[in-house]
Amino acid sequence: MSRALIIGAGGVAGVVAHKCCENFEVFSDIMIASRTKEKCDSLKERCEAYKKKVGSGTNIETAKVDADSVDELIKLINLYKPQIVINVALPYQDLTIMDACLETKVDYLDTANYEPPDTAKFEYKWQWAYREKFEKAGITAILGSGFDPGVTGVFCAYAQKHIFDEINYIDILDCNGGDHGYPFATNFNPEINIREVSANGSYWQDGKWIETKPMEIKREYNFDEVGVKDMYLLHHEELESLGLNIKGIKRIRFFMTFGESYLTHLKCLENVGMTSIEPIIYEGREIIPLQFLKAVLPDPASLGPRTVGKTNIGCIFTGKKDGEEKTYYLYNVCDHQECYKEVGSQAVSYTTGVPAMIGAAMVLSGKWKKPGVYNVEEMDPDPFMEDLNKFGLPWKEDYAPILVD
Amino acid sequence: MSRALIIGAGGVAGVVAHKCCENFEVFSDIMIASRTKEKCDSLKERCEAYKKKVGSGTNIETAKVDADSVDELIKLINLYKPQIVINVALPYQDLTIMDACLETKVDYLDTANYEPPDTAKFEYKWQWAYREKFEKAGITAILGSGFDPGVTGVFCAYAQKHIFDEINYIDILDCNGGDHGYPFATNFNPEINIREVSANGSYWQDGKWIETKPMEIKREYNFDEVGVKDMYLLHHEELESLGLNIKGIKRIRFFMTFGESYLTHLKCLENVGMTSIEPIIYEGREIIPLQFLKAVLPDPASLGPRTVGKTNIGCIFTGKKDGEEKTYYLYNVCDHQECYKEVGSQAVSYTTGVPAMIGAAMVLSGKWKKPGVYNVEEMDPDPFMEDLNKFGLPWKEDYAPILVD
Repeated sequence: MSRALIIGAGGVAGVVAHKCCENFEVFSDIMIASRTKEKCDSLKERCEAYKKKVGSGTNIETAKVDADSVDELIKLINLYKPQIVINVALPYQDLTIMDACLETKVDYLDTANYEPPDTAKFEYKWQWAYREKFEKAGITAILGSGFDPGVTGVFCAYAQKHIFDEINYIDILDCNGGDHGYPFATNFNPEINIREVSANGSYWQDGKWIETKPMEIKREYNFDEVGVKDMYLLHHEELESLGLNIKGIKRIRFFMTFGESYLTHLKCLENVGMTSIEPIIYEGREIIPLQFLKAVLPDPASLGPRTVGKTNIGCIFTGKKDGEEKTYYLYNVCDHQECYKEVGSQAVSYTTGVPAMIGAAMVLSGKWKKPGVYNVEEMDPDPFMEDLNKFGLPWKEDYAPILVD
Repeated sequence: MSRALIIGAGGVAGVVAHKCCENFEVFSDIMIASRTKEKCDSLKERCEAYKKKVGSGTNIETAKVDADSVDELIKLINLYKPQIVINVALPYQDLTIMDACLETKVDYLDTANYEPPDTAKFEYKWQWAYREKFEKAGITAILGSGFDPGVTGVFCAYAQKHIFDEINYIDILDCNGGDHGYPFATNFNPEINIREVSANGSYWQDGKWIETKPMEIKREYNFDEVGVKDMYLLHHEELESLGLNIKGIKRIRFFMTFGESYLTHLKCLENVGMTSIEPIIYEGREIIPLQFLKAVLPDPASLGPRTVGKTNIGCIFTGKKDGEEKTYYLYNVCDHQECYKEVGSQAVSYTTGVPAMIGAAMVLSGKWKKPGVYNVEEMDPDPFMEDLNKFGLPWKEDYAPILVD
């Protein structure tokens, strides 16, 4: 019987709220809070309908909060008295929310690392700097409990615990085989995607980062239940923590699939300046081209009902067990339409929101309760893996996967 | 010693004004009028500097006029008392300017056919409907005296008069081999380009239109002084008048070169909705995506100094002379940088503006003075052809051109 405060009311928050209701034995009370209370109220309404379907008794409240303001956050936490804050707001707001948790001595969980608004670095250093403070305060912070980072880290911990004596190579493969029928649209903030695609790639090898040019390393892979897709090596935040937390690791890489047409559109939009975040003067008013582009593109929320196909995200491991070389592929396949039918969101939000709920349940049930700041792979993967099967993200195994060269 | 009123102050108007000054034996007085008087004044300033260079004595005045308003136009014409109005404003304004010319009994010349603002049709019917009125008023209207339409029509009349007994096939080839160094930019209103590219193509054959899908017919051609380029069959307005005015014609087609990268950018921008003329609501205000795109793209005026390379526009004829099959290619090559050095505009504006000045000089000097509404190919091509050589657009001939299949 626990109380959780969910900060954020977007696509991922919607999945978290629904899934907390489904897991009502743990989440007796949830509050949904965001800058726009109407979004929280409308999410609550959808959850109330869902509760009837699944027979949930979770009490839902809503509130307005500016997650940039530590004071407002502290006030709300003191008012609602949650045992955990589930941060599914913007990555820029991780630190203010962590500060509020420290002040109120409440556990914390998020799905994406802190980014300074001006320079996207995808680094944990800002949040890792809170380790001692959280330890001293006796509270737990779980960083990156979405799918990637999140489930991918749990998969690594599971493989380390049960399958290998030593893991030497990990390739994380993130495939979205979904089709929304538009020539171009983005599931989330296109700026994040553009940053990922136009930034240098990097991977961890022999204890140091190897940098690549943007989209320099391209591979084709035949994904189970999806088919053959092009994928590109990108930097991704979990590489940093896994490189440190998986002992004996020689190389860890991250690949994401992008369609050729998607990349062409992104490139053209970048070329003409439509993805710029530098404002231009239009009819006497400053307008940021990327913001205008977002307004022209289909509303991400409108993609849910029309997106078909599946995601396939997982990790391919190479290592040793009892002195023998061994390979192992642990992954999840998620169907966009099934997610939408279940909680009104497509698989990209679903695969992030479900693990956030599970991670919070782990902390609340004491299984992941340990003072300090942790990445998911530092915790026991077993109860989390059980819950993945239980709450809609069952995992599949392959003991003879095709390796990425 | 004649007075001409130039309506418009954009790139083409700039060339017309400069070239009128150069041809000061004909144009003793010109007035530049447009919606924004500052643009006219700044053009006048550039022309004053140019006049010194070429030893011109043309008097230049400027005025503000709304070319959508017949009343304003009539007032200005009555005030300035020009012998001809050179319309280089927007194609939407052809009819209001013709109405004002009728009312004041002043000759008229333009470079592009009237288009209703809502449906681009590239048809002459609206302006041809003025034939009787102009005839009765005893004034001349010359339609489409730019390069294409314009010089291409004069080339046809010249070929018909001097080279062939009978022309059977005409291919008009419009090649812009210029490079401005941007991944994407347009020399003029991108909407017109987008309309051309996304509209069905068509050509005239055996007395009727054959329609093609957009960009369906693609050919490669090796252009003199430019090199090999991809070109696409488009509908173009002069096909309509030439199909009627060139006797014995069996087929007439129009091809324009487009680079692959240009087309990809255009297609992507269209796909995401950035070329739409349907307003969207952005921060509570209506904004037309295409207008915003234009604001993001490089200012066409900024392309002039940086565009290098050449245009090559002309007509390939196949027909009979003295019973023999004969081919003939008549074309002009124009260098972007040389145009810029001469009049401060690149070749796309230059090749349109010079023929407008020449056409007006033809009417003013009486060589093309005939009551009614005419397309250029209905007039004697010889004095016009002489002036092309004199005023910067010398023509080249090829009696054994490679034909387009």
